[in-house]
Amino acid sequence: MAVNFTVFEDFAVVKGVRVGVAQAGVRKKDRDDMVIFELAEGTQVAGVFTTNAFCAAPVHICRRNLEKAEPRFLLINTGNANAGTGPKGFRNAETTCEMLAKAAGVAPEQVLPFSTGVIGEPLNMEAFERGIPAALGNLAEDNWARAGRGIMTTDTLPKGFSKQIEVEGKTVTITGLSKGAGMIMPNMATMLGFIATDAAIPAAVMQGWARKLADKSFNRITIDGDTSTNDSCMLIATGQAGVSVEEGTETADAVFAALEEVFRVLAQAIVRDGEGATKFVTIDVEHAASVREALDVAYTVAHSPLVKTALYASDANWGRILAAVGRSGVKDFDLEKVQIYLDDVQIVEDGGRCDSYTEEKGAGVLAHSEFTIRIELGRGDVNERLWTCDLSHDYVSINADYRS
Amino acid sequence: MAVNFTVFEDFAVVKGVRVGVAQAGVRKKDRDDMVIFELAEGTQVAGVFTTNAFCAAPVHICRRNLEKAEPRFLLINTGNANAGTGPKGFRNAETTCEMLAKAAGVAPEQVLPFSTGVIGEPLNMEAFERGIPAALGNLAEDNWARAGRGIMTTDTLPKGFSKQIEVEGKTVTITGLSKGAGMIMPNMATMLGFIATDAAIPAAVMQGWARKLADKSFNRITIDGDTSTNDSCMLIATGQAGVSVEEGTETADAVFAALEEVFRVLAQAIVRDGEGATKFVTIDVEHAASVREALDVAYTVAHSPLVKTALYASDANWGRILAAVGRSGVKDFDLEKVQIYLDDVQIVEDGGRCDSYTEEKGAGVLAHSEFTIRIELGRGDVNERLWTCDLSHDYVSINADYRS
Repeated sequence: MAVNFTVFEDFAVVKGVRVGVAQAGVRKKDRDDMVIFELAEGTQVAGVFTTNAFCAAPVHICRRNLEKAEPRFLLINTGNANAGTGPKGFRNAETTCEMLAKAAGVAPEQVLPFSTGVIGEPLNMEAFERGIPAALGNLAEDNWARAGRGIMTTDTLPKGFSKQIEVEGKTVTITGLSKGAGMIMPNMATMLGFIATDAAIPAAVMQGWARKLADKSFNRITIDGDTSTNDSCMLIATGQAGVSVEEGTETADAVFAALEEVFRVLAQAIVRDGEGATKFVTIDVEHAASVREALDVAYTVAHSPLVKTALYASDANWGRILAAVGRSGVKDFDLEKVQIYLDDVQIVEDGGRCDSYTEEKGAGVLAHSEFTIRIELGRGDVNERLWTCDLSHDYVSINADYRS
Repeated sequence: MAVNFTVFEDFAVVKGVRVGVAQAGVRKKDRDDMVIFELAEGTQVAGVFTTNAFCAAPVHICRRNLEKAEPRFLLINTGNANAGTGPKGFRNAETTCEMLAKAAGVAPEQVLPFSTGVIGEPLNMEAFERGIPAALGNLAEDNWARAGRGIMTTDTLPKGFSKQIEVEGKTVTITGLSKGAGMIMPNMATMLGFIATDAAIPAAVMQGWARKLADKSFNRITIDGDTSTNDSCMLIATGQAGVSVEEGTETADAVFAALEEVFRVLAQAIVRDGEGATKFVTIDVEHAASVREALDVAYTVAHSPLVKTALYASDANWGRILAAVGRSGVKDFDLEKVQIYLDDVQIVEDGGRCDSYTEEKGAGVLAHSEFTIRIELGRGDVNERLWTCDLSHDYVSINADYRS
């Protein structure tokens, strides 16, 4: 029951990127579970990875290979996260890179591996023997829609988006995919994002942009606060559109803004398809003294089970929001400067219930499936925004009852 | 559906403490909702309070009065937390102290106020006019059981415990009450604890002991991670048993150990009666490099919705526990030193699935309603323990459906 979610169909091809998809049988038969991205020579790739200390074997290899060589292939499997698998899992991830490298005629370091699925099970290497040649066999520029389905685990819907802009009289295309709905099934893990553009982005800029873009999108969403072991988000720039991005130019601003939109749409799609989600909620924290405290407040509210269950109940329970703000760890907090709004309805004024507030007004906002909780701290000029969903009966069912 | 919880009936009186209870009608009629503790002259009182920045008016007054005078009365109401009520709420809390002080012939600063219940509603002052004389009218040493019920909000059961020890040929009695089951009903807040002994504890020792005792009990429990605005825990020592505690003596050790047990039982009772709880879970983090990192790991596991739903499902989902440990923010974490046990069954060995582990063994432990998750970090010699419960359908129902 994704919230205000439309499956994107109208993918635009990104010059320099071809996509192959196969039914490898990693865990289940008769479903697409392996995706290969082929990148043209000269493509720049930058990545942002999970901060979980126990990151999975493919994340280690991916980071290492990114430093060693120019990537030519991304190899993604679902069904198995290859996490918690020790030295053997590490070796398996390397072997899958070698298999693809050999078949495609590149060096193993030019392959970046991504895995998502069950934690702690050995990777099914036979599936890679079957899947790699099959996926290489159908590489095509217009295979994005099928790839979107091919990287799903327990997502209820595939997540993709394209945007084209005109700069310098040329068309720049950005197309991306994401997956993830929380760490949802028996040990299922991972949010993944792959965003490709045919603009040329200098190597020196790539990592900074990937970080900045992720920090305003995939790093600003939360469903249940559980960071997976495999989270990876890749920015890919093939440079085939004939548009070169130099920092500080109008072109750079336009391409960055378009990338921002694609990142944001793909990140929000994960929340909209969150486990059991019935509400899509934006949390704005404004007038904070620092980014740290703005995020501390925003995440404390977003993760509070009491706030999340109140949102599920469409109950404008301002006491729970206020209590969450209060325990967020901000030093020398002056309650009397705090204002809280639901969309345009002020519920807390100067730290107490707003005089003009009525339950009817609050209920009017929460009747919608999508709204904003805005918290003004009155401490500085830093604003931060993140997106989350509610905590419903279905969340418990999905995560507790799956073996029944 | 409290977990392994027996209502305590066998209260021992604490010399120097009398308890009065009244049906004041703070929020509902025909239920005990006001409790007064009368303390003999010379009684020492120390308190530990919520760390929530938005603490309620009575918490402010209580802290202030503790510094100003020797407390002679505790005044507790349920039904209304007097939180988020601004300057008027502050004034109301002061007025209730004045009302009791006048009726009892003490100074207003000698009254400590405690409120629990709805956030953001003005206190019903008429209820105090009715309740205070009524509760003063039935002050008695043996009124603890009724008081236990009189401080409940949405607890399903009253929580109390007594312990007596013999020291220096004399009997020392410790009797306590607690309440709280999360921030459970429409804006209902607060965990409260009142523990009284007739030992004489020097003023210089009281605050340190209250802090130490709370840190191993009420500050080591979590149901949903939501710290309320009104949490208060009071240690009361009347000195009427003829036993004087001097630090470093065997008597001090014996009294402290007995207090520890009472604090722990009363704190655990809150988790056992936690919202929707079906499991009572001890989390031990061992061989940590610091208290901070031990608690970071323990709380991250205890608050993970994925771990909590797996516990509810009796699913020994070690991947979720490992992922929670990994995202707890410990610096330079060496995965390969991590061992995880469910009671005596090792599930994670050197950071991966333990070879000897089987799903049957894990399921055998989780079939119990009470068990321990032990996480060894292999980084130092600090051990910490806390208690939590699972996340069930009933948790969502209790917190989301209450207005239906």
